[in-house]
Order: sequence, then structure tokens, then C-alpha cells
Amino acid sequence: MPLIVHKYGGTSMGSPERIRNVARRVAKWARAGHQIVVVPSAMSGETNRLLGLAAELAPARPSNAYHRELDMLAATGEQASSALLAIALQSEGMPSVSYAGWQVPVRTDSSHTKARIESIDSQRVQADLDAGRVVIVTGFQGIDELGNITTLGRGGSDTSAVAIAAAMGAAECLIYTDVDGVYTTDPRIVPAARRLGTVSFEEMLEMASLGSKVLQIRSVEFAGKYKVPMRVLSSFTPWDIDLAEEMQSGTLITFEEDEKMEQAVVSGIAFNRGEAKVSVLGVPDSPGMAYRILGPVADANIEVDVIIQNISKDGKADFSFTVSQSDFARTVDLLRDTVVPELGAKEVVGDPNICKVSIVGIGMRSHVGVASKMFRVLSEEGINIQMISTSEIKTSVVIDEKYLELAVRALHTAFGLDQETA
Amino acid sequence: MPLIVHKYGGTSMGSPERIRNVARRVAKWARAGHQIVVVPSAMSGETNRLLGLAAELAPARPSNAYHRELDMLAATGEQASSALLAIALQSEGMPSVSYAGWQVPVRTDSSHTKARIESIDSQRVQADLDAGRVVIVTGFQGIDELGNITTLGRGGSDTSAVAIAAAMGAAECLIYTDVDGVYTTDPRIVPAARRLGTVSFEEMLEMASLGSKVLQIRSVEFAGKYKVPMRVLSSFTPWDIDLAEEMQSGTLITFEEDEKMEQAVVSGIAFNRGEAKVSVLGVPDSPGMAYRILGPVADANIEVDVIIQNISKDGKADFSFTVSQSDFARTVDLLRDTVVPELGAKEVVGDPNICKVSIVGIGMRSHVGVASKMFRVLSEEGINIQMISTSEIKTSVVIDEKYLELAVRALHTAFGLDQETA
Repeated sequence: MPLIVHKYGGTSMGSPERIRNVARRVAKWARAGHQIVVVPSAMSGETNRLLGLAAELAPARPSNAYHRELDMLAATGEQASSALLAIALQSEGMPSVSYAGWQVPVRTDSSHTKARIESIDSQRVQADLDAGRVVIVTGFQGIDELGNITTLGRGGSDTSAVAIAAAMGAAECLIYTDVDGVYTTDPRIVPAARRLGTVSFEEMLEMASLGSKVLQIRSVEFAGKYKVPMRVLSSFTPWDIDLAEEMQSGTLITFEEDEKMEQAVVSGIAFNRGEAKVSVLGVPDSPGMAYRILGPVADANIEVDVIIQNISKDGKADFSFTVSQSDFARTVDLLRDTVVPELGAKEVVGDPNICKVSIVGIGMRSHVGVASKMFRVLSEEGINIQMISTSEIKTSVVIDEKYLELAVRALHTAFGLDQETA
Repeated sequence: MPLIVHKYGGTSMGSPERIRNVARRVAKWARAGHQIVVVPSAMSGETNRLLGLAAELAPARPSNAYHRELDMLAATGEQASSALLAIALQSEGMPSVSYAGWQVPVRTDSSHTKARIESIDSQRVQADLDAGRVVIVTGFQGIDELGNITTLGRGGSDTSAVAIAAAMGAAECLIYTDVDGVYTTDPRIVPAARRLGTVSFEEMLEMASLGSKVLQIRSVEFAGKYKVPMRVLSSFTPWDIDLAEEMQSGTLITFEEDEKMEQAVVSGIAFNRGEAKVSVLGVPDSPGMAYRILGPVADANIEVDVIIQNISKDGKADFSFTVSQSDFARTVDLLRDTVVPELGAKEVVGDPNICKVSIVGIGMRSHVGVASKMFRVLSEEGINIQMISTSEIKTSVVIDEKYLELAVRALHTAFGLDQETA
């Protein structure tokens, strides 16, 4: 019997009625002859409720002891939703049992609130599956070697599901969510956006990291590492939809480059709003310059995205990078106060209203001229490119935020991604 | 350093602000040189919220698998409140760590939703205490030998606290609650009721089982078995009340009969409302009669309290017992439909509006005439006694429910329990 892992997000688990629908869908799969492991998130709103209570009591300086307690607290959300789903399955006449991460066990390192899975013991779960039960495993959490509860960080349930699928050799890991798949770009910006039937895991990785919030990026990395076929599909189709149809719905994330996939040079247009650009001008071009600029930024817990250093001229270089808009003022202050004087750079300039637009496609590897086509399309729309960054399967540009929608639509059309209209 | 166990009820843990007050009180004790283990209940309302969700999804026939999931679900309430209390203590500058039952571990049998504690490993907790930490242990829960989470049933946190106090050799187990001690009777009925400074554990046992809801009866049994001094006191005094004063407040439950205790013949008046009386008349007096009547009642999960069988006359006996009012109709139907025809008894009669009033006192052991004084007092008030049941340290009567307040007040005065008025 093929083993399938289902993962349901917080919205799908948001009320007893929704949990009942999840149970009916899962029971349908099980009755069709599949062994099923389900990984549910906490009921929507629950994790925020718990962390809100903690915030009211939090110590001024968060210690490791504090993060340990946050994990004890937050882990209860998934434990409760898992038990409720097991109960709902039993009510549907389907034998079921739920396990918290520590009961499986799902072993992690000790990095509280952002732990990494180290190993999963599949024995107990497999025994229940073989006895005809649907097994529910709490997402988002595990146990460290000292017996403390750990959590994997926000969105960690996706990663739990993929890790369990990998450990148990599941045929597929289905991520049920509130969208019906991965799109060529955000349909709210481009109504002609198309759902992709398949996408390579490398493309998915770039899209996930570039602002397509469908999947947690760590879960995609995990799926790629262990070659777990992963499918994103909607939990809002009727639960009694024909199984064969459901098995082909959504978007499958694959690991083989087949003929069909090579045809599409660009698979999607990703974008990030809310970014800001910071440039340090006239930096003396000496070894270690990048580290001396970005070291203090990283120490201040500011996340840096695109980094550009142009060629040096007269022994001076310009150095630019992007940060989140909310970190912009802090970053500029930090550089002006300490980095510029220490480095002997000329000045710090910036723009708090930029965005990043990227074309992503595994076909770019073997097709030349894709990037230049992107630059031409933007230029035809009168959009000035402020920074460019490229990787094997994507090209990103930083532009003025006000051009975001225009750029995305123009690129979507130019690369042939628009849905054919009847 | 003396080890003290504190237990806080759900009302005391009901909001972040209240949890902060608990943390301040606990920190005061710890700073005065005590090792402290705290056992908190779930935040008030939380257990009901969780079980309400389960009720919406519950299967028609509750199985053991269902009760297992109820335990997974309900146990999250205490895990969350324990983590929050640890966080609040850390905010007060007091090192603290929380453990779920399975982490201690608190080992229980496998009777889900009503498990019994079998053993407690104190090693991990003691190591933290010795390292200067306040240790929070979730009440109400444990782990069975198969690694499943179990719960001890409603009010089980009292039992957890006493069991931990016993396992760790604590000097005292303080039960912080929303009343300031154990009273001679319910002050809402007798305004002159007095708080008892001490009460013997046997008296407490009778009072707990007779409707004084201050302590869970199993916790008192546990305290008696392991000779754990237990004190009931208020969590609503200011947290910074003088420690010496706090240590003498409330009611101490003791295990030694001292001089002072022998002086009081009757320590308190307990009562149970909401009972009903059922009588089977004209039962052929043969061996096994009681079992043939009460066996089917027990099989129907109906709890029976007072049981009376009078002497037989002409080979026929009358048999009476009390049940909860909510079980009255079901009990009568059951007896009429099956028991009476099978036994060849005459008929079933009953009264759905009775109550039980009891005088409790360890001094009754060595004082004659206490019961007859009780009967005289009730008779002087014109109250008819329907059933009488006695034990070594209590005498209970079943009377018409409408006389409850009158009976309690009259007995309270007659046995010298009224507070002296200034």
C-alpha cells in the first residue's frame, strides 16, 4: 500500500467543522487503500494567541531558558489540533492515533524556536499504519537530546511533513493549503497568471525565497535533498472530490527535468515588496571590505538580500545591498555612525522604496539571451533598473517600488506566461 | 533548604496579570531560602474550551482510543500555563524551568482521563532545584508505560502536587485556591462559619467527599497515605504579604491528633445537594440481593452514595440508596424494567429532592451521644430524617432538600461551631 503524507495548514484546521472536512478527506484516501500520515498545523490564530500571552510576561532580555519555554508553550497548539483531528477521524469510523513530536520521536538540535530536524524514528508510526490506523503527527516540533521540546520556527509544519515523508519513504507529500497550487506569478497582480502543473524543485526554491509564500523554503530544501515528491493543492475543494482528480490537482514539485519542462524557459515571475536599498560610496578597495561593511549589519540582526559590488575605480568602490524597509533607518544609522568613519568611505545613500522582481526558470540554464530580454522589456516600459543580480535559474532586478505591478505584468506577458483566453 | 510544593488553581492562573502575581509570590518564597516546585492548573476556562472542541467532533461511542486523544488534548492546557509561569518567573529575575508530566516523568497507569499515579522520578527536578531554579511541573497529567499522555481527571492537579511533594519529601504542600481555608461549613449558608486552623486528614477526607469542594478527595487520600502536610490557603492575598504570616495562614491538614484537636467533638458540617433517593420495596431476602440490585446500576455508570438495607421481615427487605438527581429517572426506569421483575420485588419508589447533611469530627471516636444529639437537634427543628448512615468520624442523614439550610445552621450552632461575635 503506498504511503502518502498529508499536511494541512492552520486555516484548513481553523474550526471543528473544518477539521471534520479534513477528516473526511483523509478517510477517503485511507479507504482507497493508502497508508496516510497527517501533519496538521495549529488551528489558525492559536499560535498567535499563545505567543501573545507570552509577550505579556516576557523578560526584558530573552535568554535560552525563555526560548525553551516559548517552545513548550507554542508546541501545545499542534498537539491540540492533532488530537482533535484524530477524534474527528474516529468519528468517521477511521481508526486513528496522534503523536506529539517527542512521541515519534522527531529528534532535533537544541536551537529553541528555530530547531533543525536531525532524525525521525519511523518505527512507532509504521506499526500503527500497518495496524490500519491513520497516524497524525504534530507539525512544527520535536525533541532535543536532553528531552526538551523544540519547535522549528514559523511555518515549520511544512518541513515536518516533508521530513516525515522522507523518513518513511512516502510516495508523495501533499501540502493542502488555501491556494490551489503554484502560479506563474501572483494572480492578484496579474489576473492572467496560470497555475503550473509541475515546477522543478529548484524553481520552487527560488520562488519560495523570492516572496511566493505558498511553501516554507526549508521544506522545499528538504524535499530536494531527499527527493520527496511534493504537491501543493487546495484544502477547499469539496472533500468528496473524485480521488483520481484530486491526485492530479495542484502543482507537483519534481526532481527530474523532463522534455516538457525544458520547453518553458521562464516558469514564473517572483517579486518582493517592502525592500530598501543602501549604498556605501567611495569605499577604499581593500581585502575584507565586504565583511567590514556587512559584519556589523549581521551583528545587528539585519537580514541582507541582494548584494552588489561594482568594479573599483581609483582604488575606491561602491557597495550596495538591500534590506527590509523596516530595517532601513537602522541600517543607515549604523553605517553612518560606525562603518563609514572606520572604513574611510565617502558617504551612505539609500532608497527606502524599492522592490525586487525576478524571472525564474530552470530552462534559463540552457537558453541565452533570457536576461537581456528581461532588461529590454523593462526598458520598453520606461522602468529604470537600479541593481541586477543573477543565478543559474533566475535573474533579479531592483527597481522603484511604484513600478512593481507594471514590471510583473509586462514580464509575465513577454515570457509567454499569460493564460490563453478563450 | 526546605522544599515546598505550591499548587495554584485555574482561577489563580487565569490571566497574564494573575500569573505575574503567582510568579512574584513564588519568587518571594524562593528568595527566602526555600526550594520551590510549582504545580499549576490550566488557565481557567481553558480545559472547558478544549473539551468543548472535542465534544463537537466526538464519536458516537467513546472508545479507549478516543479517551487517549482527549488526554493529548486536555494536557496542553497545563503545559501552556506552566510555560507561561516559567516565563513570568524569569521576568522576575528568578531562574525557572517547566516540565510536562512525561518529562519528569510522572508515571501513571493507562486509564485515560482518570489515570492513577504509579511513580514519580524526582531526579531531574531535584537537579534543577539544586542548581537554584524554581521548577514548574504540569499538574493533572502523566505518561503511561507505552509513552501515551494520560490525565488524572478533573481536579487532578491537587493530586499531582501532593504526589510530587511525597516523592520529593517536601516539608509542606501548599494548595493556593480562591478560598482562604477549610471552614466549619459553607459560609454562604452559615455566615457564622469559622475557618479551621487545622483539620485532621480523616476529617478532611470526609468533608471533601461530602461536598466541600475545596480539595480533590484523591489528593487528600494521597496526602494521608504518604503523610504529606498539606495547607489550603488563598492566592488572593497580596503577593508581598509577610512570609511568616503567609506560612501560618489558611488551614493545615495534619496527621497527628494533638490535645487541641481532641477538644472539638465535631469539626464541621458537610452537605450534598442535588441527591435523590430510590427504594426497592419487598425484595425477597436472599444472598446476593444487594449485588443484583446495584450491579445493573453500576453497569449503567450511575454513581451510588448512601446505601441502606433494613432488617428483613417475613423474608422481605426494603433496600434504599441515593444517586445524583440527574440520574434519578434513569435509575428508576432501570429498576422497574429489569431488576424488579427479575428479583420478584414489590415496587420501586423514590424521592428526587433530598439532600445529605453530615457532622464530621475525629473527636466522635471517643465521645458517645454525638449522633443522638444530631437527631435531637433536627427533630427540634421539625425535620424528618429519611435515612441514616454512620462511620467512625461522621454521621450523615438524608432529609428533604428544602430543609438543607435550616439543618446546617441548627447543627452548626448546636455543636458550638459558630464564630464568636464581638
